[in-house]
Amino acid sequence: MKSILLDTLRGETTPRPPVWFMRQAGRVLPNYNKLKESHSFREMMANPNLAAEVTLMPIADLGVDAAILFSDILVIPNAMGMELKWTDSGPVFPTPLSNFSSPVEHLKENPQKLEYIYDVIDEILRRRPQNVPLIGFCGAPLTTMCYMLQGVSSNGNFPDAMKFLFSNKTESKKLIDAIADFSVHYALKQIEHGVEVFQLFETHAGLIPTEMYMELFMPAVEKVGKAVRATGTPFIFFPKGFSTGFKAITPDLCDFVSIDWQMPLADAREMIHPEVGLQGNIDPRLLYAPQEVIAVELEKLKPFFRSNPKWILNLGHGFLPDIPYENARFTVDWVKSTKW
Amino acid sequence: MKSILLDTLRGETTPRPPVWFMRQAGRVLPNYNKLKESHSFREMMANPNLAAEVTLMPIADLGVDAAILFSDILVIPNAMGMELKWTDSGPVFPTPLSNFSSPVEHLKENPQKLEYIYDVIDEILRRRPQNVPLIGFCGAPLTTMCYMLQGVSSNGNFPDAMKFLFSNKTESKKLIDAIADFSVHYALKQIEHGVEVFQLFETHAGLIPTEMYMELFMPAVEKVGKAVRATGTPFIFFPKGFSTGFKAITPDLCDFVSIDWQMPLADAREMIHPEVGLQGNIDPRLLYAPQEVIAVELEKLKPFFRSNPKWILNLGHGFLPDIPYENARFTVDWVKSTKW
Repeated sequence: MKSILLDTLRGETTPRPPVWFMRQAGRVLPNYNKLKESHSFREMMANPNLAAEVTLMPIADLGVDAAILFSDILVIPNAMGMELKWTDSGPVFPTPLSNFSSPVEHLKENPQKLEYIYDVIDEILRRRPQNVPLIGFCGAPLTTMCYMLQGVSSNGNFPDAMKFLFSNKTESKKLIDAIADFSVHYALKQIEHGVEVFQLFETHAGLIPTEMYMELFMPAVEKVGKAVRATGTPFIFFPKGFSTGFKAITPDLCDFVSIDWQMPLADAREMIHPEVGLQGNIDPRLLYAPQEVIAVELEKLKPFFRSNPKWILNLGHGFLPDIPYENARFTVDWVKSTKW
Repeated sequence: MKSILLDTLRGETTPRPPVWFMRQAGRVLPNYNKLKESHSFREMMANPNLAAEVTLMPIADLGVDAAILFSDILVIPNAMGMELKWTDSGPVFPTPLSNFSSPVEHLKENPQKLEYIYDVIDEILRRRPQNVPLIGFCGAPLTTMCYMLQGVSSNGNFPDAMKFLFSNKTESKKLIDAIADFSVHYALKQIEHGVEVFQLFETHAGLIPTEMYMELFMPAVEKVGKAVRATGTPFIFFPKGFSTGFKAITPDLCDFVSIDWQMPLADAREMIHPEVGLQGNIDPRLLYAPQEVIAVELEKLKPFFRSNPKWILNLGHGFLPDIPYENARFTVDWVKSTKW
């Protein structure tokens, strides 16, 4: 497939950076909001027709260079045996694993529960326009573990999960291993069904000390990355809030690393091994600003691209629901029409 | 005053690092919980007798080397003219400033509203044991502004505050200036009443891109620090989650900088100007672990102290309410009895 995203991932020089956005298929799109009036998130995610429609929507409505599977990171805990309830305020695991002293013993894996996602992938690939690669993904081990131990949280600190992790290291390790193994299975199935890029979302990398991440979670990330890359699929790792942990990102771990909005791109570039490509890191909240302010900030990215062509333009975290659609569209148009 | 904390702040060599804890006067102390049964947080904070008792409690109950004023960072917004309501779930500003397009115009400063805090300081200094310095504090500009714009948040992301900041830079600047000026006034009054050290808490430094912090907030931090230091009072800055922003911490800005738990001390030491002392950065959640695990982690800090005597042992963030008192006490005993 001829694709500016795949070219960049392969290290080829392109006239501009490729662009896609985390959470691009969602509430900034008027067409998504229309669909949302008659379908729940769960319905849209589980129905191959709807999921394919939503996945491909940003290609037409925003003009981005790639599609990313419309799904959720909670599908893994669910398929690993956790009951998942959909409430008005979103999905909840009624029985958090921090209730138990030996969490893994209370899991019962059922990979069949993920089959509908492969049907979604098949449908997306049937429908997608030419030259539009599909990015597959799953949650990374710490983030997935947080939800499993906490039972979903409105508190970004996951207090019960953290308490468990810090006080039961041995049991935590068993759980991390189980998540890693299941994630390998899930990633390989996505690839088997045709996703061309795989991204691992460690949204909560910043929750714990860097040394602890390195000791307990990085081996699990390596395991997933190794399995993905063995198939020839480019592997992007997104450890949000990883701070100086970025010093540990080497070409053995991943092809590209996605940078959160807090860290200056130049600082990230300095810390990360030079052969690893970068993705990111526009602050999604910049898209609240007037378009002339957005343009000024985008302009500042040009010198970075010129000395760092191995770079995918993206956000430093997902779109927020009340970002004006016009500003998201403006950003893509600017990226594609400016002289880099 | 002869105090191991003040000695270290002055750059003198001491046989061990001084130790105190953020949120040391609070819910890990059984005596505090007893008091809490008959008094609300607000009562304890506002009554000089109670506030002095709580402020000095950790000296006896934990054995720490310093007391820190028992108060709250929301006192500034309140004295700047924001109505503050105490609800069952804590303090709330019913009219968040993000409701207005020009927030500063809706403020009406009343420094008199802080007088009771100076009475608290006077009472603490009357009662305190010899050689126990008192640390004063206030919230730093970004953190204070977040609460003012959001009207207090259960969501650590302060979405309304962020939206305002990113879309109204000019008005945000005016608000930041007003907060900085009022903080200078408040800090100087605390010092006039006798606090011997002043710490500025930027709990939410990690909320915004580092470049934005440097541009909009750092000048305000400098202003407060300059005023504090002009009185000869040591100034500690705590920018939580500041990541590579630490590269900008120089002796012009502060005497010591407090490091969050996420960042390895060695990484912080490498980034921060060598003349600036460090404070921190034990992960408070380590204190959930069994005492033998805590001891192993504390032992690892010894080499750091030997090559970095300009260091105050503290947490990387405040105590959590369900940390066992015995583990907090164990940590202080260990620090004071071990051979460094």
